[in-house]
Formats: sequence, C-alpha cells, structure tokens
Amino acid sequence: MEERPATWDLGQKAATGYRGAIKEGKMSREKNISQLSPSEIRNLIRKGKWDKPTPGLAMGFAQANLVILPQRYAFDFLLFCQRNSKPCPLLEVLEPGQYQTRSLAPDADIRTDVPRYNVYRRGKLEAAEKDIRTLWQDNSVTFLLGCSFSFEEALIRAKVPVRHIEENRNVPMYITNIPCKPAGVFHGPMVVSMRPLPPDRVIRAVQITSRFASVHGAPVHIGDPSAIGIKNLGKPDFGDAVTILKGEVPVFWACGVTPQAVVMEAKPDFCITHAPGHMFISDVLNEELATL
Amino acid sequence: MEERPATWDLGQKAATGYRGAIKEGKMSREKNISQLSPSEIRNLIRKGKWDKPTPGLAMGFAQANLVILPQRYAFDFLLFCQRNSKPCPLLEVLEPGQYQTRSLAPDADIRTDVPRYNVYRRGKLEAAEKDIRTLWQDNSVTFLLGCSFSFEEALIRAKVPVRHIEENRNVPMYITNIPCKPAGVFHGPMVVSMRPLPPDRVIRAVQITSRFASVHGAPVHIGDPSAIGIKNLGKPDFGDAVTILKGEVPVFWACGVTPQAVVMEAKPDFCITHAPGHMFISDVLNEELATL
Repeated sequence: MEERPATWDLGQKAATGYRGAIKEGKMSREKNISQLSPSEIRNLIRKGKWDKPTPGLAMGFAQANLVILPQRYAFDFLLFCQRNSKPCPLLEVLEPGQYQTRSLAPDADIRTDVPRYNVYRRGKLEAAEKDIRTLWQDNSVTFLLGCSFSFEEALIRAKVPVRHIEENRNVPMYITNIPCKPAGVFHGPMVVSMRPLPPDRVIRAVQITSRFASVHGAPVHIGDPSAIGIKNLGKPDFGDAVTILKGEVPVFWACGVTPQAVVMEAKPDFCITHAPGHMFISDVLNEELATL
Repeated sequence: MEERPATWDLGQKAATGYRGAIKEGKMSREKNISQLSPSEIRNLIRKGKWDKPTPGLAMGFAQANLVILPQRYAFDFLLFCQRNSKPCPLLEVLEPGQYQTRSLAPDADIRTDVPRYNVYRRGKLEAAEKDIRTLWQDNSVTFLLGCSFSFEEALIRAKVPVRHIEENRNVPMYITNIPCKPAGVFHGPMVVSMRPLPPDRVIRAVQITSRFASVHGAPVHIGDPSAIGIKNLGKPDFGDAVTILKGEVPVFWACGVTPQAVVMEAKPDFCITHAPGHMFISDVLNEELATL
C-alpha cells in the first residue's frame, strides 16, 4: 500500500502547474478563455484549439470526470459507483453507444469535447488522444462523475482557504486503508484528497461540502492521517504536497481518482478516461448540484 | 392519464387498513410484534408467521421497496434509478444471483424475508407468494429502494401532521404529467404521494425531508395539483383519499410506486416485487440515511 501500484499510471503529472499558469496569465495566447461560456470552451476544445487542463475555466459550472468502458463492464461499474457514492458520485451515465449527454450539456460530443483523453488497454496507459472518434465503439458506455472543483469554489466563496490553489499546485491525494465496497470485478481502496484547514474553518468546510453530495460531499476523515492508513502527508501518492501551517488540521475528502484507480486495477480490455485535470466542462452550475 | 393503466395492477388494495389495525391492537394474536427488532420480525416472516403489511413495525428502522429483475434488464433499470433518484432512491443493489444484502441487513434472505411478494410475467400480476425460493434464478438482480415510511417518522417526530396515518388510510398517490428520464426500455410518468399540511408546517416539512435524499428527499411540488397534471385530489390513482382541511396545502413527494409502475409498463418477461405495504425491514436506522 505504501508504493503506488505500477498499473495506476493515471498520467496525472501533466496536470500539475497549469492551474496556476492560467491564473497568472502565462497563457496569454488563450487570453480571455476564462471568460468563455462552457459551450464556447467546448467548441474550442472540439476544434483542437484547447488541449490543456480545465481548472479555472467556466467558473461556476460543474466539471466532470470521465470513464468510458465496454458494455460488459457497465453494470458492475455502475453498481460500484452506486455503492461508493462518495468517491464515485455519478452525474450522468449514458446508454451503450451514446456519446451525447442528456442533462450535463446536451450539445456536447463526449468523443471530442474533452481536451485530452487517456486510452488504456488491460489497465495499461497506451496513448493520450485529443479526439476519440476513431476509438469509439457501439458498446461504449460513458460515465460522468462529479469533481472536487465544484466544492472548492464553494469553499473559496465562503473564505475557507484551499491551500493547493493558493500555492498553484495539484491537490495532494493519498491511497487510504478504507476499502471501497466491491462490485463485480471492481474493488480497491478509497483515494482521498487533503486540504489543511485552520481549526476554526473545519466545521464550516463540513457544512459547505455536505450540501454537495454529487461532488464527493462531506469529508470522510478529519485529523490524524494514520487513522486512515496515510503515513506521510509530505509524500502524496498522486498530486503535490502542500504546506500545512502550525495548528492546521488535515481534512480528507473522497477523491475522483478512486474510480480511475479501481478501473485500472480491474484491467478491462479497453477503457478511456479524461487525462487528469483535463475535465469535461458541463452547462450545469455548481449551485444546481447542491442538495440544500 | 385519467384512468390508471390496466397493467399497473400493483395489488395495493390489500395494504389499506392494516396500518391502523396494528396501532389499535386488533392484531392481538401478534401482540408485541411492534416491539420486536428487525431481525426478530424477519425471522417471523421467514417462518411464515407474519404475512401482513409492515407499517408500524420496527419503528426507527428503514423499510425498503423491492424489485427483482432478470440480469438482462438490470443495467437499464439501474440507469433509470440513477437518472430518477427522487422516485427511485437506491438503498442497495445486489449482484446477479445474490439474495443476501451486504449493508441493509446482512443476515437476511431476500427470497423469504418479505411478508408478501407479487410475481409478474410480461407486466401482468400472476401470483402473490410468501416465499420465492422456487422462483429464484441465477441471474436474478435485486434492487432495494427507499420508502417514505422513513421520512414520515421524521415528520411525526417534528410534529408535522401526516394525515393518512391519522386517518388509518393508505397514502394517496397520483400519476403526474412529470416525465421520468427514460433509460433503455424503462420510461413513464412520475407517481407522487400527497400529504396535506397547514401552511405553517410546509417549510419545516421541506427542511426535514431534504435531509433524507435516499428516501425520496424534498417534495417535488407544493400547492396546485393541476400544475403537475392531477385533476382531482379526491380520486387518487393508488391508495386512499384523505381529508384536506380548509387552508391546508397539498404537498407532493416522489413516490416509490413510480419504479414499480415503470417496470410494469416495460413488461419484462419476469419480475418480482414486494406486495404494496409488505416491505423489507432493514437493520439500518432511518437517521443513518440522513444526509445532514
């Protein structure tokens, strides 16, 4: 458990650093992209004019994790998500062969509207693609899952600090000893993301994220990392370490890397996901996802 | 839409009246059953010693709706529930052939522990059974869905009146003009239950039921029945009419009859459900189902 399994090559390194780059205006050629609507950004992506990470784009709108599997795995994976809704909150699932969403963004094409895709065969990363139309199959089933970007925006609006954004890093993620409930061929430990908070913001963070059950919801653990099998906060399994100030409490949320890691462990013949940080941008407002 | 479709023969008439009978002690031979634990009641049911409706039993514990379908329908139905979580809140779904739950009640047997089952072939009610072991197939997939009994208990504890319980009747249910999101072969209108409330209790009722997303959650409509296609509150499509006092507001919740009605409309070769009112009694407390 200490070492990240070799098959969990999610290619997430590429995502690091872009979040800040957008904010600092280093991507001046794409200036104003952060002002565009979800539909306008998807149009750029579709035309191959944007293949970079999506944090900071279309603020206010929900972004989604993507998993595409052959139909024979679809019931098991849907069941896995139903049983493990904190790490795997389903926003939308499409019928076999369908590549247009009904509710998240009806004019989008799932095969072209994600900036970068990872293609896996038997759990091994085979290629990164900007367009998967030639890989699409009649029995491909698309799963779109909620993403922590949605609740991070709500935290920031409530003046709860989000350290990795402040430090222009990728969020630190850790493999825990919390088992997911298995379903068919899918099983594995929960992966969590960590945000250090001043003690007086912890309760507010619980309240805010509890409203967003469809984007991971309330934390799964507060405090002692060793209680959930994390040995060293300075060495995350994915993403980057962040500064933890004196007196701050580490707060852990179920993370969307969990379903990807679980799928990779199951080694399906074929699977396509978004590349980490390169999300599907929906037309749904984060606030529309709130329960209360 | 005015007439209830003939294929929606859910046999719910049998459920009417029992709720009150238990409270009034008319079932003296089974005296004290309302004091028994979920496990003890399931044991009685398994031995054939209780084949009556379950309202009022194991108060505090969640009861569940049951739908059993052959595996070839399972992905579509799971997808339908995911897309329509208010009428179809999944509590647990079992792998094909599995008849023991993992989380709701690990010692239960889904084939014997429900007091009465309805067996349908091609959407037609064929038989009522007390034990379905001889009907069980290796590819049977079990769906357990949340039930409004859970939130009614929370309403009563907060002094929000629940009229059909006060009047010892079955809750009134109506077919609306609100379409469910279709999934594969499953489609149809949402069925709602109605509880009339004094205006000063409506907001509290919204707050309380919002906490219970896994048992239908917040109302889907407040006020004018015609806005959701209901012509006459005095003539429910299922269940019994209840008294609406002067000034009271009808409040409508998504109803667990929806998935059953949708399954019947799809006319699967084979399907087993609980008989209305004869629910599966779980070991999970209603409070454990609350989001907040």
